[in-house]
Parts: sequence; C-alpha cells; structure tokens
Amino acid sequence: MKNFSLVSILTLMLGITPCVAEENRGNGAPPKDDSSLKYVEFSQMGNPAKVLEVRTDTARALQNGEVRVKVLATPIHPSNLLQISGFYGIAPELPSTPGSEGVGQVIETSPGVTRLAVGQQVLLVGGGTWRDQIIAPAASFIPLPDLGTPSSEIIEQLSMTAVNPLSALLMLTSFVDLEEGDWLVHSAANSAVGGYIIQLAKQRGIKTVNIVRREGLAEDLMSKGGDVVLIDGPDLVAQIASATDNAPMALGIDAVGGKTFTRLAQSLNNGGTIVSYGVMSGKPVTLNPAMLIFNDIRVRGFWLSKWFETAPMAEQQAAFGQIIPLIVSGALSANVDSRFTVSEIKQAVERAAQSGRNGKVLIVPNGQ
Amino acid sequence: MKNFSLVSILTLMLGITPCVAEENRGNGAPPKDDSSLKYVEFSQMGNPAKVLEVRTDTARALQNGEVRVKVLATPIHPSNLLQISGFYGIAPELPSTPGSEGVGQVIETSPGVTRLAVGQQVLLVGGGTWRDQIIAPAASFIPLPDLGTPSSEIIEQLSMTAVNPLSALLMLTSFVDLEEGDWLVHSAANSAVGGYIIQLAKQRGIKTVNIVRREGLAEDLMSKGGDVVLIDGPDLVAQIASATDNAPMALGIDAVGGKTFTRLAQSLNNGGTIVSYGVMSGKPVTLNPAMLIFNDIRVRGFWLSKWFETAPMAEQQAAFGQIIPLIVSGALSANVDSRFTVSEIKQAVERAAQSGRNGKVLIVPNGQ
Repeated sequence: MKNFSLVSILTLMLGITPCVAEENRGNGAPPKDDSSLKYVEFSQMGNPAKVLEVRTDTARALQNGEVRVKVLATPIHPSNLLQISGFYGIAPELPSTPGSEGVGQVIETSPGVTRLAVGQQVLLVGGGTWRDQIIAPAASFIPLPDLGTPSSEIIEQLSMTAVNPLSALLMLTSFVDLEEGDWLVHSAANSAVGGYIIQLAKQRGIKTVNIVRREGLAEDLMSKGGDVVLIDGPDLVAQIASATDNAPMALGIDAVGGKTFTRLAQSLNNGGTIVSYGVMSGKPVTLNPAMLIFNDIRVRGFWLSKWFETAPMAEQQAAFGQIIPLIVSGALSANVDSRFTVSEIKQAVERAAQSGRNGKVLIVPNGQ
Repeated sequence: MKNFSLVSILTLMLGITPCVAEENRGNGAPPKDDSSLKYVEFSQMGNPAKVLEVRTDTARALQNGEVRVKVLATPIHPSNLLQISGFYGIAPELPSTPGSEGVGQVIETSPGVTRLAVGQQVLLVGGGTWRDQIIAPAASFIPLPDLGTPSSEIIEQLSMTAVNPLSALLMLTSFVDLEEGDWLVHSAANSAVGGYIIQLAKQRGIKTVNIVRREGLAEDLMSKGGDVVLIDGPDLVAQIASATDNAPMALGIDAVGGKTFTRLAQSLNNGGTIVSYGVMSGKPVTLNPAMLIFNDIRVRGFWLSKWFETAPMAEQQAAFGQIIPLIVSGALSANVDSRFTVSEIKQAVERAAQSGRNGKVLIVPNGQ
C-alpha cells in the first residue's frame, strides 16, 4: 500500500501513522460499496484553481486495524494554497493530495480496532483531507471527547483545531512571558490566526492592538475581545503609542511583512520580540540595525510544522488539550466565510484566495 | 563637585563611582602643581575633527579618597566618533568629554586610599578618558594584576580591554553554544572586534569564516587564527558554502548591515542566529520573512552598554577575568595603526575615520 503522496507534515510530526487514502485500493478485498467517492489532487504546482483536480474513486474493504472515516469538514488554509503554488517551506511530492486538517466521524471499523467505534468523532491530522472519506489505521486519528450530537457549527470549528489555534497559542506563549495587563500588537488581526490570538489573549487578560488593512472590521474584532483596532499606514507607530498611552509592548506578531513588520517592530519596547508567521504582502522586511543594537529588538519566525517536528509529544498533547475544550465550549472560534463540497474545489480555492473575505473557506463534503 | 559631563556608560554600568575630571577644581585646596594638563571636550555634536577641542587645566589637590592617575593610553573607538557625531544610542549631555576606556598609572593617592598605591596600573572605565590625567575616587578604577614593568605594547593592548574584547567574547558565547569544530561567519573581520573574535574562537577550536570588503587582508587574518577569508560580494553565500564544504553555520556576527547582513543570514543553518553590532555601510538590512519562518533564523543585536547595565557584577568580573590575562600574555591583541597625543586629537580622529586603516588609533598622552 502506498501512503498519501503528500505525506502530511502534521501526521509525520504527531508521530502517528499517516492516513491511507481511499484511492489506494486494498489487494483483492471487495469494495465495501461502489458509491462514487471524490478527492482532490494536483499533479503540478501552480495556481490552485487551475492545477487542482477532482478525482473519483470507489470504496474498498478495510484491512485489519483500519477505520473508515467520513470527512465532515476540512478548511482551506493559506498554507495549503502556498504549498500547491510551490511557495512553501516543503515542496510536495507529486501527484499530491492537499488539505492538512479536519474533523470526521468513524463509519466503519475493522477487526482489531478497539480504540475507535462507529460514531466516534475524530480530528484528521493527516495530509490529503480534502476528500469525502478517509481510510487509515485507527491510530492515525485523534479521538474527540464525547460531544453527544454536536451542532454543525461546533463540527466546523473543530475542523480548524490543529493549525490556526495552535499557532496562535504557541506564538502567544512561546516567545515572551506576557502577564495579565500586558499588551501585544499583531497584524492581519482579522485572519483566523488573528482572531484566535485575540480570544486567547483576552482569556489571559492580555490586551491586544489589532492591526488591519481596511475599514469595517473593528466591530467584529472588538466583539472577539480586541482592545484597540487600528488601520495600517505610515503613522501606525504613532497611532499605536497614542491608542495605548505609550504602554510597553513586548510582543509583536506579524503575518504581513513589508512595512507592516517594520512598524510593528518599531512599536516594541526595549528587548521586545517580533514574530513573523506569514508574508501576506509578499514583500521583504527592512530593519534598521540600530533597532536591533540599541533597542535589543529580537526577530523570530514561527512555523507550526517545525513545532510538530520538535516539541515533545506531551507538550503537543497538552496544547491540543488546551484548545479542544475551548472550541467545544464556543470560547474559541473563527469566522466561516463559505462552504463548498469536494466537487466545488475550484470555486472554493478561488474564494479562499480573494481579499476582503472575513472568514475561513471550508470544504464540507456532505454539504452540511 | 561635578561629575564628567559625558557620564560614561561604562562607569555607570560597572556600578562604580564616575571619574571626576581634572577640570573640576577642588574647593579651596591649592593645586598640586601648575603644570598644564590637556583634555578633550566638545560643546556641540558634529564632525569630530571639527567639534572636538583641546582644553587646558591645571592640576588641583586631591580630596580624601581620591587618586591621581596618569593616562598611559586610551583608544578612539567608532562608538566614540558616533557619539560625538550624534549617531549613538545615548546622546551625550553637553559639553561632554569623550573617550570610554584606557589604562593609567596611579601617581598620587590621598589619605583614606588603601586600595591603590602609587605605581599601580589601572584600567580606566570612566568617561572622558582622552586626557593627560584623571582625578577620581580610588573605587573608580579597576586595578590590574602586578605586571612588573610592562612593555608599552602591553600597556597599549590593555587600554583596549573593556570594549572590543568583551564585545567579541560576549557575542561569541552569549547567543549560541558553539562547540569545538563548529563554524561561525563574521563581517568586518579586519576590525578590532573582528580580530578578537578570530583569536577567541581559535582558542576554543571554533572555525571562522572571515568576511572583509577589500583585498590584502587575508594574511593578517590567517595569522590571527582565521580559517577562511572571503571578500564580500553578490556570490558571498555560495563562496561561504564552497569554502566550508557546506558546513553548518549556527552563528553570524555582522557589523556592516545592508546586503552583507542578509548574505550572512542566508548562510546560516536552520535555527541559526545572526547578531548585529554595527552598521558600517550605513544601510538598513532586508530580510525575507520566509527565512525567519521556514529556516528559523533568529535576529539579534548586541550592545555592550546594555550588558554592562544588566549583567550581574560577578558575570562582569568573570568576563574581565577571562580577558585581562589573555591580553597580558599576548594571546589576545589588536593591531595599532597610529598614536597621537591629546593635543593632536583632530589628526587622531581624522585618522580614525579613514577607511583602509588596519588597526586602532590610540591617544598616548605622554607620547610613549
């Protein structure tokens, strides 16, 4: 049997067996049924709306230890689009099946599976989640706590557990020890990660300066718990100082790059740290070394995959253990912009690439 | 009594009483003698050769607890010139007397002084060291070990203890734990700090890629213990990879800024740290955030004054304790370009500002 062609970073890093996709037939076992199952694949890197293709496969029988999971929801992240386009830290092995996380429900188990039962909801942390069904060893999935019959809203929120909320949590806690009453500043505050940063900071009593690049977002960000919402521009440093009454600012988190990064760095107090996790502007950053030398500004980058690769398993479990209950309780959520089926993948990625959205694009295979 | 108008960063940071200069007369005590004593002062910031002035004062009697120290040698550092020009992290209070370190010899003590005796050699760590004599409380000086009658060469080398060798030692040891056989890359390798980095690295079995901006320096740098000397240029990253057989490079140290900084950063392995301590090119640095995110490159700055301000006294003493014996034994030295008296300060700073020098410009008040 062949593993996912895009061996998931996440799967590898969680130290669990990679998922095994539907398109990989068992050897000789008869298909469970002949219903047509869809999945997304790309054979060359490029514009996602052009290179992604919807493929169809039929179900196969489970092998010992495997479970069949119906995909309930799986998000389209900027990192997925970057990887399909060839602008990511790791190039996929082609052909490749995209999608890095989601939530599903076990619909069939094989002999030898004791850990999961039919009906169990699970997090998908394997690659190639943009599909109707996944067959994989039971150990590939993270079982969710018993949620009864969760709303489709909670299911959708849980489909976004492993990437953005973890990134927000780790950037908030790994670089600077912030205490109640401290401030942080972050850009792309209306992104999914930005929203999680606001909510996680608020829960800790940490105040946020939320930088966006257009009007009309303040109400949403304030309702999430943001303290100050500012629009990026040449006077951003003065705006931040004024809005916070010159409060010390020990942490900046940037996903934009270019001048935004520089302005955030200039807003930090001596010894402050700026963390980069994205380059939405596509522009490099410029720094005056005097800021590094005299103000002791520290520049770091954050890549979740690296954390999955290096953090001890107990630390990873603890992070999931913090995030999942917050999502289930509704204390942590992201806006959802729109929902598409697997067949609608081209429209889905086009929508995900549009500016001016205010939420995540989800693939909801069964059209919940 | 008035303290030095330019209250020395070093003095403040070493936590000792600032020196008290000759020009500050005692109240009513008769002058010890009427010989004319020279010191350097500036009343406005600007081009050092223009704004520096040589002033003359007569000696005064010591007050209780004070000692009189003859200045033997005191260097002109780039940081002195930057501060006089107004381009430094701390603006001086005007009028100000420049000079940040040196070596001297006690020529008179007052009652109550038990720590120092006539003939004792001391490090000057107060501000305003560009002068013939200093009167200050005994506690203002760091006594040197008994050197017998040290050569003028050793005296000159000791006059440069507190700034450049400490910077080199701290940048080499504070950011990355390098082990024997590891590599580092640094720019401005022919600067005084660069030379100390080479020597201190060599003593630890750490290999150095030494980046310079002109021909003709390799022999000197190799004789100091350098492993590879390369001339900066667009192909620097490839040059470094080739010269080190793609050895991992965990530490970069830069004093140039601009493209040099970026090239050094690009030469580091994943998780590597680049430390900036100067901007000789006068140019800001440009970084691709992808390097921060995917390669986990960490960017820091180093400012010795900050270390003096924050490091525990025991740590500071330990650092001096490492450096002084190495200088006395000749294991650590810097090239000396030229020597001037206090009266020749304008020629001295003009020489210090010239490119193409290959050594430090010293003020040697008594024309050794």
